[in-house]
Amino acid sequence: MPETPTMPHAPRSISLTADSTALEVRLAARHGDFTGHTSGVASAHVQVNLAILPAALADDFRRFCELNPVPCPLLGVSEPGSPAIPGLGQDLDIRTDVPRYHIWRNGERVSEVTDLRAYWRDDLVTFALGCSFSFEHALLAEGIPLRHVSEGRNVAMYRTNIPTKPVGVFSGPTVVSMRPLKAADAIRAVQITARTPQVHGAPIHIGDPALIGISDINQPDYGDAVAVHDDELPVFWACGVTPQAAIVAARPAFCITHAPGYMLVTDKLNSEL
Amino acid sequence: MPETPTMPHAPRSISLTADSTALEVRLAARHGDFTGHTSGVASAHVQVNLAILPAALADDFRRFCELNPVPCPLLGVSEPGSPAIPGLGQDLDIRTDVPRYHIWRNGERVSEVTDLRAYWRDDLVTFALGCSFSFEHALLAEGIPLRHVSEGRNVAMYRTNIPTKPVGVFSGPTVVSMRPLKAADAIRAVQITARTPQVHGAPIHIGDPALIGISDINQPDYGDAVAVHDDELPVFWACGVTPQAAIVAARPAFCITHAPGYMLVTDKLNSEL
Repeated sequence: MPETPTMPHAPRSISLTADSTALEVRLAARHGDFTGHTSGVASAHVQVNLAILPAALADDFRRFCELNPVPCPLLGVSEPGSPAIPGLGQDLDIRTDVPRYHIWRNGERVSEVTDLRAYWRDDLVTFALGCSFSFEHALLAEGIPLRHVSEGRNVAMYRTNIPTKPVGVFSGPTVVSMRPLKAADAIRAVQITARTPQVHGAPIHIGDPALIGISDINQPDYGDAVAVHDDELPVFWACGVTPQAAIVAARPAFCITHAPGYMLVTDKLNSEL
Repeated sequence: MPETPTMPHAPRSISLTADSTALEVRLAARHGDFTGHTSGVASAHVQVNLAILPAALADDFRRFCELNPVPCPLLGVSEPGSPAIPGLGQDLDIRTDVPRYHIWRNGERVSEVTDLRAYWRDDLVTFALGCSFSFEHALLAEGIPLRHVSEGRNVAMYRTNIPTKPVGVFSGPTVVSMRPLKAADAIRAVQITARTPQVHGAPIHIGDPALIGISDINQPDYGDAVAVHDDELPVFWACGVTPQAAIVAARPAFCITHAPGYMLVTDKLNSEL
């Protein structure tokens, strides 16, 4: 496997674009040529959230996702120890093909790495979960402006008072992402995102943040705050950070996630969802 | 044709229900046995708004509806002078089959009648327009509560600052109906009503009434006010009163409409829309 021996994490000047293929992005990540966030890269392709857990926790986590499909839309699961995820990509190696990973021990993040091979274990099961990048692609294609995209920020995310259905050690609040939209765009966005239940589907709330337990819209729990103008409604979708928050709260002795925004790019097309 | 000679407008104790056929309702209206409002009657069937205009105005009005299909969804048009509307019902006589009609002269309502035969002219063209009863049927069937229905009121309607596209003498604001809904129900209602563009489709506004020119939500321009609770959003749909308001504003020398709430019940099923 090629390496960049002197500066393993510094990206070479490889140019990945919206038109890159998914395999090009994965190979660039694998070879240390791409360690950036994947927003806007290979944009026709489904990008996924990752949760990598010891097999002893896998059955409960799978059930947690199945009982909470709106925030936790399961798109693929690996065999224990296997670096492949059936159905999500040819020549896909989960240990190397994501630009950045987070390593967690006992619920604490202990490092951010660009290669998992030193951490890999034969009992690790990888879960791939749908991501809002897919529906944002559809919203932008329909001419609905997204402020965090135009401002180059991460989307604003909040913990709510809407509980998930608990399974074993996995429980916790539904986390939502928020996009401010004019009412007419919000109405169209409901219709557009309802078509893709595999990537969170329709919004779960519109309007007053306090009704879902958000006390200050200007203080997101994750991501970046964006302004909500007087002629806009805050529109809230269930978010893939929900399963990650449930895992962290479960404090497993060991687990791995992608770094938020640094996703696995799959061969699946958004248009297939 | 049977008549009730002594009290032509007093209904006999005929029992029309949600399960009545459309023809039963039309025959009861025709024979003077039913002069009530049609909400909840023959509920599987499409009910329509009526505008009956002299042929000289018909081309412009048809074009007005075609250019403004969301508030003015045209479901049928008669030949001049014909009491039938092709496609909307067997044995349908527009002159007798609606429980109550309004007669207009120069933009003023001059009478409410239960039979048009004394007013009929060979140049009258009947326009049948989709009505929110159809989508309310769908909303209730999906378990979405509608306050004006549970309180036995007419829906609240408002003139907005959203202009229609004018044609000839026909112009004016889009009129909307408003239903207060919890956010989760509003999101489902968008999806449900988007499926039926022939009866106004998805809402055109959600939230702040002032953004569409409504200064006081407690003072509807038509229908009855209903409370909007703190945990609800006002949801606004384009309304079939829009074409009626455009006709009244055009002040034609003569025209006829149904009395609001007293609709023509067609053979078409809501499930066909």
